[in-house]
Amino acid sequence: MVAGPVRPTPGTTALQPVAPGAARITGGYWADRQRANRENAIPTGRERLESAGNLTNLRIAAGTAPEGAQVTGPIFMDSDVHKWLEAAAWEHGREPSEQLLGWIRELTAEVAAAQAEDGYLDSVVQVQDGSLGKRGRYADLPWSHEMYCAGHLFQAAVAVSRATGERGLLDVAVKLADHLDATFGDGEGQLRDVDGHPVVEMGLVELFRETGERRYLELARWMVEARGTGIIEGHGKEPTYFSDRVRVREATTVEGHAVRAVYLTAGAADVAAETGDAELLAALERQFAHMWATKTYITGGLGSRWDWEAFGDPYELPSDRAYAETCAAIGGIQWAWRMLLSTGDARYADAAERMLHNGFPAGVSLSGDEYFYVNPLQFRDGSHPFENRSPAHGRRGWFDCACCPPNIMRTLSSLDGHLATTGAVDGTEGVQLHLFAPSSLTAQVEGVGPVRLAVETGYPWDGGVRVQVEEVGQGEPVDGAQWTLSVRVPAWAAGATARVGDQQLQPQPGTYLRVTRAWAAGDVLQLDLPLDVRLSRADRRVDDARGAVALERGPLVYALEQVDQPEGVLVDDVVVDAGAPVGVERRDDLLGGVVVLHPRGRSAGHEGGGATWLPAAEPEPAPGSDVELTAVPYAVWANRGVGPMRVWLPVR
Amino acid sequence: MVAGPVRPTPGTTALQPVAPGAARITGGYWADRQRANRENAIPTGRERLESAGNLTNLRIAAGTAPEGAQVTGPIFMDSDVHKWLEAAAWEHGREPSEQLLGWIRELTAEVAAAQAEDGYLDSVVQVQDGSLGKRGRYADLPWSHEMYCAGHLFQAAVAVSRATGERGLLDVAVKLADHLDATFGDGEGQLRDVDGHPVVEMGLVELFRETGERRYLELARWMVEARGTGIIEGHGKEPTYFSDRVRVREATTVEGHAVRAVYLTAGAADVAAETGDAELLAALERQFAHMWATKTYITGGLGSRWDWEAFGDPYELPSDRAYAETCAAIGGIQWAWRMLLSTGDARYADAAERMLHNGFPAGVSLSGDEYFYVNPLQFRDGSHPFENRSPAHGRRGWFDCACCPPNIMRTLSSLDGHLATTGAVDGTEGVQLHLFAPSSLTAQVEGVGPVRLAVETGYPWDGGVRVQVEEVGQGEPVDGAQWTLSVRVPAWAAGATARVGDQQLQPQPGTYLRVTRAWAAGDVLQLDLPLDVRLSRADRRVDDARGAVALERGPLVYALEQVDQPEGVLVDDVVVDAGAPVGVERRDDLLGGVVVLHPRGRSAGHEGGGATWLPAAEPEPAPGSDVELTAVPYAVWANRGVGPMRVWLPVR
Repeated sequence: MVAGPVRPTPGTTALQPVAPGAARITGGYWADRQRANRENAIPTGRERLESAGNLTNLRIAAGTAPEGAQVTGPIFMDSDVHKWLEAAAWEHGREPSEQLLGWIRELTAEVAAAQAEDGYLDSVVQVQDGSLGKRGRYADLPWSHEMYCAGHLFQAAVAVSRATGERGLLDVAVKLADHLDATFGDGEGQLRDVDGHPVVEMGLVELFRETGERRYLELARWMVEARGTGIIEGHGKEPTYFSDRVRVREATTVEGHAVRAVYLTAGAADVAAETGDAELLAALERQFAHMWATKTYITGGLGSRWDWEAFGDPYELPSDRAYAETCAAIGGIQWAWRMLLSTGDARYADAAERMLHNGFPAGVSLSGDEYFYVNPLQFRDGSHPFENRSPAHGRRGWFDCACCPPNIMRTLSSLDGHLATTGAVDGTEGVQLHLFAPSSLTAQVEGVGPVRLAVETGYPWDGGVRVQVEEVGQGEPVDGAQWTLSVRVPAWAAGATARVGDQQLQPQPGTYLRVTRAWAAGDVLQLDLPLDVRLSRADRRVDDARGAVALERGPLVYALEQVDQPEGVLVDDVVVDAGAPVGVERRDDLLGGVVVLHPRGRSAGHEGGGATWLPAAEPEPAPGSDVELTAVPYAVWANRGVGPMRVWLPVR
Repeated sequence: MVAGPVRPTPGTTALQPVAPGAARITGGYWADRQRANRENAIPTGRERLESAGNLTNLRIAAGTAPEGAQVTGPIFMDSDVHKWLEAAAWEHGREPSEQLLGWIRELTAEVAAAQAEDGYLDSVVQVQDGSLGKRGRYADLPWSHEMYCAGHLFQAAVAVSRATGERGLLDVAVKLADHLDATFGDGEGQLRDVDGHPVVEMGLVELFRETGERRYLELARWMVEARGTGIIEGHGKEPTYFSDRVRVREATTVEGHAVRAVYLTAGAADVAAETGDAELLAALERQFAHMWATKTYITGGLGSRWDWEAFGDPYELPSDRAYAETCAAIGGIQWAWRMLLSTGDARYADAAERMLHNGFPAGVSLSGDEYFYVNPLQFRDGSHPFENRSPAHGRRGWFDCACCPPNIMRTLSSLDGHLATTGAVDGTEGVQLHLFAPSSLTAQVEGVGPVRLAVETGYPWDGGVRVQVEEVGQGEPVDGAQWTLSVRVPAWAAGATARVGDQQLQPQPGTYLRVTRAWAAGDVLQLDLPLDVRLSRADRRVDDARGAVALERGPLVYALEQVDQPEGVLVDDVVVDAGAPVGVERRDDLLGGVVVLHPRGRSAGHEGGGATWLPAAEPEPAPGSDVELTAVPYAVWANRGVGPMRVWLPVR
């Protein structure tokens, strides 16, 4: 396989991903998630595209739908098809499947048939009757998502091309990209407008990387530069919502609709890399740092507000009202991954891990085919029953606005591509390991040739990571050719130890442990990350986490779910004892096999006194009897129905 | 004057209000508010009814509108006219005005002209073209607000009748009430349905009290009893929203849409009183207590959720997301007042005071004519800019959904009626003072005759309350006739002292100080309420108030507004020193004359470290330099523009 979702032009980034296929998750936690994705989510998703009407829309546009068929769904229905195609393609790349390939070919044909003669493609706009928005092509770009659909098509086409070698969808993508390139820009007779919802920027850059057609990169660059100039007009909303208040290279933070914001910055990172734009990259580093310091949930969730699905102010991170859309976590991972590639800075890998292990997987059931759109850090029985995206309605098999499910699918099916990179960030060529999972990988190290590694680990439940060099230079010993094996040491891993043979190493948390030597087959690098339970607190300005702690262990954030607590103990009444040791228990029988935590706490009855407020000098009433509580990883909450849950646990 | 907004049938309640007019606020804080209401709000409101189209709607229904006039606004537009009429009537009752009387007559004529031959009245439904809801009378009662409008009409008609002696609007009300009585009920051919939005219950009971027509009381009783039986069908929402999940007499808490919920319970309190229904009253006591203990903001604000304007779960009281609609505070006051009348229990007067001095007045500018719909306890610059009811848009002169402004007007213009009651709760007839303001009042004490009192006080800025008996028995000494003068001692007033002449009394906070004697002209009861600054905390389950205090002084809750803080000190970065004395300063130049508070605190820069979360064992960084902060009463916030504000102040 040539590449995964992101293949920077050589020399434009510090690191180059090891392609999925060359890097392969072979077991453990993520393999279980990927199996559910392959066996349940993707086949079910195929059916949903039929039953929800996405394919009918395409057929109406193609003229092949039965008489009387109606266009349905939101205006961006096509994008669900594209994302599903991308997921299926990566999954076929992981392990070829006639069924997947058949489906890919079928859906490629459906998409191709719907495309207009001149390359335009958006089935809803093509066939709409006026009821779904303003009529006509590009008449309402702030809301029409026409380029958003195109962006997802480009990503899907690249995936199909890279994973199957078949060009059918790529031809459709090229035709559409050429149409966009001809239509938009500053030239005579061109439209000067951008889509209200970014993603096409990432799609165009990757299409450039796949086809070599530089016009696509230039168009993406033009779109990134146009943003923030007030280009989006007549939309009836604040420019902030569309990330159109300030230019990307001048912005100091992320704001507005969270998914739009991080898709834009991720695309801008691609543009910065390919155009060698150091100023733009620095601006993105600044924005990422501000997001991480002030606008990110401890779960890695992004977007505080239900209102317009938006980032909030700094430290505005309410737990129960958290929006933290699953797609925002995915966009955050995509952005972090691109920043890591460009900079080689471990902080981005740490950030990606936090999102990947917490905010992201909470959005999908262990069975793979039931989803959350919104991922709060606290749930009450009565939370938001009127909002149809609320977890109050339980995990759902699909949504009217179904952006999240196929987004999850493509993320899981391309996850292997996040295991490792090659590059020479410290001057010596080598391999960098970012994501810990039982895996095998073959990387091309410059001056050395192919290097094959096998990783054994029980991560995230166990902190031992054993990296064995299986082969260097295709079985031919490469005399004296030194190269560097780098392994990420997460910032939380204080006390980590490592060794190669008898040699003790000094891993520094928050960096890569870099070991340069003439690695030979059979050599083993052993990294041991201490998985002590960590009690974390938020910045005091995070209002509803004040006076509370969160439990973390390794990369995982934990949560109390009502179902696990002793009889009569309500999670919202609990006070935990921050001084007491927290029990750790492996539970193979629970939630697919997890480590649960047992903090000590106290619990009183649920009813209060005569008033909600009391003199500050009057001590809180004793919070009742001592109890042992049980916390499970936030990533797997709501797999036994939805009940009261909380991440931040009061300590007094 | 015969009575104010609530005139229980003698013998049905423990207390009987002293009518506004007989009770009169003569100066001070509330007199300033009432002046702004009379001079700015009510005349401006009269214009708004014209410009917003409310009167045009009535004219279209009457057939007197110009050709081509269009019906506008939400379906309950008539209710704004009715509430304005009620406000104007009480205001005319306070101090007769030819202009007010002229307007009342004009608008009465407009309303009367719109009424259908058979008594039906709802201009929007009468003329609607189908675009504003289902077509036709009572076709969509969950949403149509037809009886809601009727309820406000009944209250207005009673006000006009009591305050002006003119019957015009009462005739319209009686005709409509008779129509409702004929149309709804369990009888043959009658509709078994209720309005989605209560208020008609209160209106019908008061119309019964004014006219003596018992059918109106029976209809109100029927409506209260029907609630919670699933009577509201086909509405597409949870029954909770409409207070239709459980019967009023079986409910244990308030839930759903906050204004609907408290209007219903207030109406149920009227029904319970007039029908002597002790079980229903007990149910309402239980619900009020649960609301007060778990679902009320420290400001007295009601309703935690923007989503469907609803009460939240117990202790779900977010500060920045607080909805706390101004109308909910008003409904809360109406409910508390009725509970006080029925029980004589001081807790209801205390509750009414908290709402009246905080959550309610925050909803209107000191100028009287600019409003807040929503009253959060924390405001950030970026809060909810997309929500048109958000304070982010500043105080507004009117709203598309303009329920709050005329509701505020009628509350202020009938406020005098909340000063005092008569009754014999402890066996001796007497007068009870509930609301402290410079005032004069004349009450009829059974067995004694008229009693005239003058109250002097600087409340809420000063805690001294001087009650002088001016006259007893119309100048004729009533030999040996003992009666009881009762004065409320708020629950917060620990250390209160009182005396009559040389006699020291022992006031107990949270009760009435009752002094039974043969009061004579010239006797003075002096009550001194200590206005020490109080630091209050919330129940630990109120998440975003944990680790924080609120400042209170007397009946007032205080808030930090950004505009008052030292250069460079942001309210969201501040930590207050709960151990330091809080300075108290009288500022006659500020906000119409207020007492401001000066807590000591510390403030650091706004930017955080590298992450929002940190190890719990790592102490918070020192929060910067010592600063003197300034807090103003929450009641007057946002009178100098809208900027960052918060009530709950972190203490560590």
